[in-house]
Amino acid sequence: VQYGHFDDDAREYVIETPATPLPWINYLGNEHFFSLISNTGGGYSFYRDAKLRRITRYRYNSVPEDSGSRNYYISLMEPVTDNTADDSSAPAEAPASAGTLRPALTWSPTFLPSKTPLDAYECRHGMGYTVFRAAKAGIETELTAFVPLHTTAEINHLAVKNTTGREVVVDVTGSVEWCLWNAVDDSSNFQRNLSTGEVEVEQTETSTMLYHKTEFKERRDHYAFYSVNEPTVGFDTCRADFLGKFNGWDTPDVIASGESKNSIAYGWYPIAANHVRLTLQPGEERMLVFLLGYVEFPEAAEHPEVKWQDGDAKAGIINKQPAHELFDRFNTSEKVFAAFRELRAYWDELLGGFQVTTGDERLDRMVNIWNQYQCMVTFNLSRSASYYESGMGRGMGFRDSNQDLLGFVHMIPGRARERILDIAATQLPDGSAWHQYQPLTKKGNADIGGGFNDDPLWLVASVFAYLNETGDASVLRESVQFDNAAGSEQPLIEHLRRSVHYTMTHRGPHGLPLIGRADWNDCLNLNCFSTTPGESFQTVENNDTGVAESVFIAGMFVLYGEQYCQILERYGATDLNMDDSSVADEVRDVRAAVAEVTEAAMTAGWDGDWFVRAYDALGEKVGSHVNDEGQIYIEPQGMCVMAGLGVQDGRAATALASVKERLTCRWGTAILAPAYTTYHVELGEISTYPVGYKENGGIFCHNNPWISIAETKVGDDDEAFEVYRRTCPAYLEPYSDIHLTEPYVYCQMVAGPESPTPGQGKNSWLTGTAAWTFVDVSQFLLGIQPTFDGLRLDPHMPSRFGQLHVERLWRGTRYLIDIERTGERSLVVDGQPVDGNVIPQAPAGTEEVNVRLTI
Amino acid sequence: VQYGHFDDDAREYVIETPATPLPWINYLGNEHFFSLISNTGGGYSFYRDAKLRRITRYRYNSVPEDSGSRNYYISLMEPVTDNTADDSSAPAEAPASAGTLRPALTWSPTFLPSKTPLDAYECRHGMGYTVFRAAKAGIETELTAFVPLHTTAEINHLAVKNTTGREVVVDVTGSVEWCLWNAVDDSSNFQRNLSTGEVEVEQTETSTMLYHKTEFKERRDHYAFYSVNEPTVGFDTCRADFLGKFNGWDTPDVIASGESKNSIAYGWYPIAANHVRLTLQPGEERMLVFLLGYVEFPEAAEHPEVKWQDGDAKAGIINKQPAHELFDRFNTSEKVFAAFRELRAYWDELLGGFQVTTGDERLDRMVNIWNQYQCMVTFNLSRSASYYESGMGRGMGFRDSNQDLLGFVHMIPGRARERILDIAATQLPDGSAWHQYQPLTKKGNADIGGGFNDDPLWLVASVFAYLNETGDASVLRESVQFDNAAGSEQPLIEHLRRSVHYTMTHRGPHGLPLIGRADWNDCLNLNCFSTTPGESFQTVENNDTGVAESVFIAGMFVLYGEQYCQILERYGATDLNMDDSSVADEVRDVRAAVAEVTEAAMTAGWDGDWFVRAYDALGEKVGSHVNDEGQIYIEPQGMCVMAGLGVQDGRAATALASVKERLTCRWGTAILAPAYTTYHVELGEISTYPVGYKENGGIFCHNNPWISIAETKVGDDDEAFEVYRRTCPAYLEPYSDIHLTEPYVYCQMVAGPESPTPGQGKNSWLTGTAAWTFVDVSQFLLGIQPTFDGLRLDPHMPSRFGQLHVERLWRGTRYLIDIERTGERSLVVDGQPVDGNVIPQAPAGTEEVNVRLTI
Repeated sequence: VQYGHFDDDAREYVIETPATPLPWINYLGNEHFFSLISNTGGGYSFYRDAKLRRITRYRYNSVPEDSGSRNYYISLMEPVTDNTADDSSAPAEAPASAGTLRPALTWSPTFLPSKTPLDAYECRHGMGYTVFRAAKAGIETELTAFVPLHTTAEINHLAVKNTTGREVVVDVTGSVEWCLWNAVDDSSNFQRNLSTGEVEVEQTETSTMLYHKTEFKERRDHYAFYSVNEPTVGFDTCRADFLGKFNGWDTPDVIASGESKNSIAYGWYPIAANHVRLTLQPGEERMLVFLLGYVEFPEAAEHPEVKWQDGDAKAGIINKQPAHELFDRFNTSEKVFAAFRELRAYWDELLGGFQVTTGDERLDRMVNIWNQYQCMVTFNLSRSASYYESGMGRGMGFRDSNQDLLGFVHMIPGRARERILDIAATQLPDGSAWHQYQPLTKKGNADIGGGFNDDPLWLVASVFAYLNETGDASVLRESVQFDNAAGSEQPLIEHLRRSVHYTMTHRGPHGLPLIGRADWNDCLNLNCFSTTPGESFQTVENNDTGVAESVFIAGMFVLYGEQYCQILERYGATDLNMDDSSVADEVRDVRAAVAEVTEAAMTAGWDGDWFVRAYDALGEKVGSHVNDEGQIYIEPQGMCVMAGLGVQDGRAATALASVKERLTCRWGTAILAPAYTTYHVELGEISTYPVGYKENGGIFCHNNPWISIAETKVGDDDEAFEVYRRTCPAYLEPYSDIHLTEPYVYCQMVAGPESPTPGQGKNSWLTGTAAWTFVDVSQFLLGIQPTFDGLRLDPHMPSRFGQLHVERLWRGTRYLIDIERTGERSLVVDGQPVDGNVIPQAPAGTEEVNVRLTI
Repeated sequence: VQYGHFDDDAREYVIETPATPLPWINYLGNEHFFSLISNTGGGYSFYRDAKLRRITRYRYNSVPEDSGSRNYYISLMEPVTDNTADDSSAPAEAPASAGTLRPALTWSPTFLPSKTPLDAYECRHGMGYTVFRAAKAGIETELTAFVPLHTTAEINHLAVKNTTGREVVVDVTGSVEWCLWNAVDDSSNFQRNLSTGEVEVEQTETSTMLYHKTEFKERRDHYAFYSVNEPTVGFDTCRADFLGKFNGWDTPDVIASGESKNSIAYGWYPIAANHVRLTLQPGEERMLVFLLGYVEFPEAAEHPEVKWQDGDAKAGIINKQPAHELFDRFNTSEKVFAAFRELRAYWDELLGGFQVTTGDERLDRMVNIWNQYQCMVTFNLSRSASYYESGMGRGMGFRDSNQDLLGFVHMIPGRARERILDIAATQLPDGSAWHQYQPLTKKGNADIGGGFNDDPLWLVASVFAYLNETGDASVLRESVQFDNAAGSEQPLIEHLRRSVHYTMTHRGPHGLPLIGRADWNDCLNLNCFSTTPGESFQTVENNDTGVAESVFIAGMFVLYGEQYCQILERYGATDLNMDDSSVADEVRDVRAAVAEVTEAAMTAGWDGDWFVRAYDALGEKVGSHVNDEGQIYIEPQGMCVMAGLGVQDGRAATALASVKERLTCRWGTAILAPAYTTYHVELGEISTYPVGYKENGGIFCHNNPWISIAETKVGDDDEAFEVYRRTCPAYLEPYSDIHLTEPYVYCQMVAGPESPTPGQGKNSWLTGTAAWTFVDVSQFLLGIQPTFDGLRLDPHMPSRFGQLHVERLWRGTRYLIDIERTGERSLVVDGQPVDGNVIPQAPAGTEEVNVRLTI
């Protein structure tokens, strides 16, 4: 069963029913102002930080689900007829707008909150925008929601068209519920919050602007507003007045009566509702611009008077000048359309850097549109705010952010560079890293701490990817602090050195890297023996015996240790002022360690038919045939083979065959098998989940592309593609009733084959799966690999893909690449045959290079 | 406007409409299992800790409000008639229960969640129980909710009676939504939680028990269940299946269709719904016992196998034995009725220790019933869980807990003694105190820290009250740790000494006590100059200049320093093994300091017409006529006069006249005036609130009784009573539409005269107001004052109260006291005239003493 369809020309997913299995969402915003928006209009907005600057309120785990924000109501109005009076002198031909009116029928252009069945409904999630088309009783609406570029506001542009053939009066009410800024405090500190809410109202003959200024009196330098660019017949700012007793947002009193109360909120629950009355002639269309804006006065720290009208804090009237300016930028539909065109052009450019034609429309739409789009969303949001991440908790992950970068570096290399420097500054002097850092302060999060021993190596991965994409070796010379401490600055290359040496110097009894609190699998907590409910498995280390080792990190070290060596060899002498002998010494030392770790992985880390996962704090194997449960884990099979381990001697192929046999089902490859039926205190959180869910035997999509890449390493291109396809959302579209989550983006986890609900997806959008699947499909399946000095072509598509066309923008030049399966290898670049499979970087200023590869 | 009435004989408040201005609630539970329950059945249950062991889910700030827990549905069923079939062979006289049935009409016996208008509705909040009586379509229901004594379960006993005169089939479905134990995690950590939910179902021919066992697999040793003692026709445990798409708890799919789905929750949102079908003859009544139970296995730490059926963790079936035992204790209405009678007897005894007859029924019901009841609720709940305290945040307050004790020590002196020792153990070695401690661990809360300089003196107040109530001087010898540190034990009297000396040694330039982070007014933060939004005013001390002083603490020191001296003089030699000279030395030193502080308060602390509030970190006066705003504060006027300052020289009366003139309105006495219109960085949170709310000019009910007591000190008994009356909820009952909160309990704050909404109450139930108003009315207005060795009678009632009768249980003897206004003072005890106004303590074993006082 599917609930919509892709419109690839428009780069949209078109949802055809409000009743998707779960709210299917989209993200608006590109810089600082962000919104979530579901296919029924749910969601919320925030400025930069979803916890500290939440603008509108959203109720997670609400009943009914997905209610409470971005509430629009359309009411077809009818005259009040007083049955008790016998005065029938009113002319029958009176215009519809005459006399007292009341709602005859009310609906929402987004279906929710009113829940009135619609005659027509369509939700189009596009690149940074969402459009709702609805029709009811001859009234057609189109609601377009987006955040313009360089703007701290969400536009809700509403077109209302009368197709009834008669004059009608239509009331339109738009409303939002304010969050009192700090989302955690907003949902818990009622003894204070119910007394703090404050609003202002500015109703003129041409517009109404409703301001939310809670705590502006004191330390905040920001407020929000919700406006409409037409005269209103009323407004409300007090939730209780607007909704009335016992009502939800589906049936507010004010909407039922058609009469706004012009209420002013004093504490309790401030909202903003703007009520417009339109008289529409037959065929007439009117357009309204609702604007949800955010204004701040950073200069108030120095000049507090700027916050206030006439500089008068005591009078307490806020300075509305910046709000007026923002309003004026979008106070006509023409201005809105122009901003919308700019937004579309922005995305055209972003996505245009990698476009493919393969003959498989599902593959094309994922690569060309949705996978790249999701990578941008992970850049913007990290793991902060989705329908599963409540925006209240964690900061940016060191590990997450480095991996996410692999997916967006080709679109926004400049911002990727900034991100690398931010991340590196949270590394600790010994080479380890804070596990998370706060995006607002960019400081390490002491609540979580460090000690996740895979973390530092991911920094090598992201820098290596950045160098391949840009060739910008100057980043290696950038002076970056450790632990954000002034005076600790060192060139970025020194950060990489410490990352690599941290692993070299933290190895266990088998010569394998120590795992620390956890490696990539946050739930494999080998030094935490927890018996206290609610205790964090990630932050408790109560039994660190110094022997728990990770074969997964071993694979990482082989892979990223080698990347580090290649960076030194390529840029050490030319860009880092290193003399040849110090480059040679360092490379020799690291490669010696890589060889040692390789040896350890292939002996202590090899179980006979697959790679062992780890050794626990008692020195016992994890992920081995000797275990009753959790005999095989996916991660070391993927990472070790990606690093090349066992590729020559066939053990890689053996390991991957075991993966296919023991972990793979139609929905993807599970993280381990058999799942743990009981709690293992020596393993940690991994064994807490019910069988088949999350880290206990779920299909953790993030690591599936590692297997796909690994299959390309051993030459099984068909299975490489199958691994890619099984978790790829576009291919799952026909099974949306089972998969549940959006068919246009990846989710973190799909319930595994041992679960009671195999195939059921959870935690869509904010997952490292986006970046890794894009790396897999672009660099390994399609095989377009940027390198330090050229673009390597090494496709591993199944043989049924006879012809591929790829457009790849790389270092300012657009490479137009045709790949054809002829059975004979050749590479022709701008008409010139080239040996090998690497296209040399074109001279600066070259616009296009035409490439033809035959294989 | 009022929404109900008092039924004093039953000790109940009877709410006559579901549409109270706010949910009006009650508390169930007396030891470890607690529930909140509103007049529409809302609320939630928890075991001991509202954050860590929340059993059912509740959505604070929900829309619609007060939805989502304790959901009962009654459906009158009718046969499905198939209009398309022409088979009319079914006999017309078929019984109502024959054939396929569907709901003809559905309602909730608590009105919510279904919202169907009822023919009759009544909610009776009693002492530890709530009864809902409803009628609809000839079906009468009575739902009684209570937590039996010594039981970890809430009973919902439902009687259903058919008064239609014909046979009917009635479907009854009871349901709860499970919280995944940790209320904070439950409302934020969805990426994990949506995969963890697990249930078991045990449906037999006589009952159905639905078990919630999330995380039982791993570290939890507890589960919950929801059962009914009748056969069910179906059940549900999966919320999405039960509710269906887009529905709230008002219109679940299963209720609309009348067909349970027997759903099993795998993750997502586990619930429990039990569906019973009753066929009722005319006049027949049936009774159902729904039980929400909690079971734990503390022995599992040593013997983990006890958690599992047959000790088999791998099979994963929970050990249901304790649940079955709990179920069996209440599996008939007779057993339920017996438990209900026990509960009522328990409360009769608790409240019976203080009963008054004054001729003013409002006064009597507050003293005899509701004020004492509220004091017990503050004992049980502290500030953890109400409709304003989300149960997620704070622990027990050092200051709060000591003051709460003043209100319940006469009812449960033994538990008061335990509480004192718990509190004292969180004192720090230097005499200061952790500001809060966690009830589960009893450790100080390091997130909040200490440095609230009033805190330690409140320990003297509670111990003094305990000694007056019990005469049990052994408590002073109890060995108590400092900061819960082993080896730091000292007798309790040493804790008192350090409390008093902490103030003596922490005084500022005027000789007044330093305020620290704040004193009683948590929002007067004189050493915190905060400019960062969201930063806690209580924990930041960034500008402690060492000069910010509190006149309020000065008053406290005079009052409680003297009490400490009296304790030493009375018990030092006899009970504490102190020699006379060390008692004398200590008393001399303390009284000398008291004299110094008195002098400072009457000079630097005196503003001319009232007491100054404080000196800020810049050495400027706070609460003085020299200020533009915040010229006069209530707290020092109350506390200093209670301590006797200015009583002799008339300045106390002057200060109180200023209070009346400048702070008092019909709704009570505001905390300060004029309210602050702008933020004062040097004052802190107090100036953040909108004008007239909370600490910025609201009526903070807690301190109103101080003024009432102070008025008795200066002899204005009429105003003393008026101050009491203005905030007393029973007197506000006619104004419930303005006051909003429950007319049977105090709220923390009423919007002040400068606010836009004067008289509007907030934050009802969990406030120190309960204890202090009870101290005021019982000890100062009625004037029954326990002392170390006798019961002092010193009534200060207005002259219109000609006769008073008080029954006071004190140290095992019931004193039956008649007070008559004759114009002549005399005291007769058991027929014997007594000099003065102190009834000597009766000999042990004396059951009753008859007392007659004339004044």
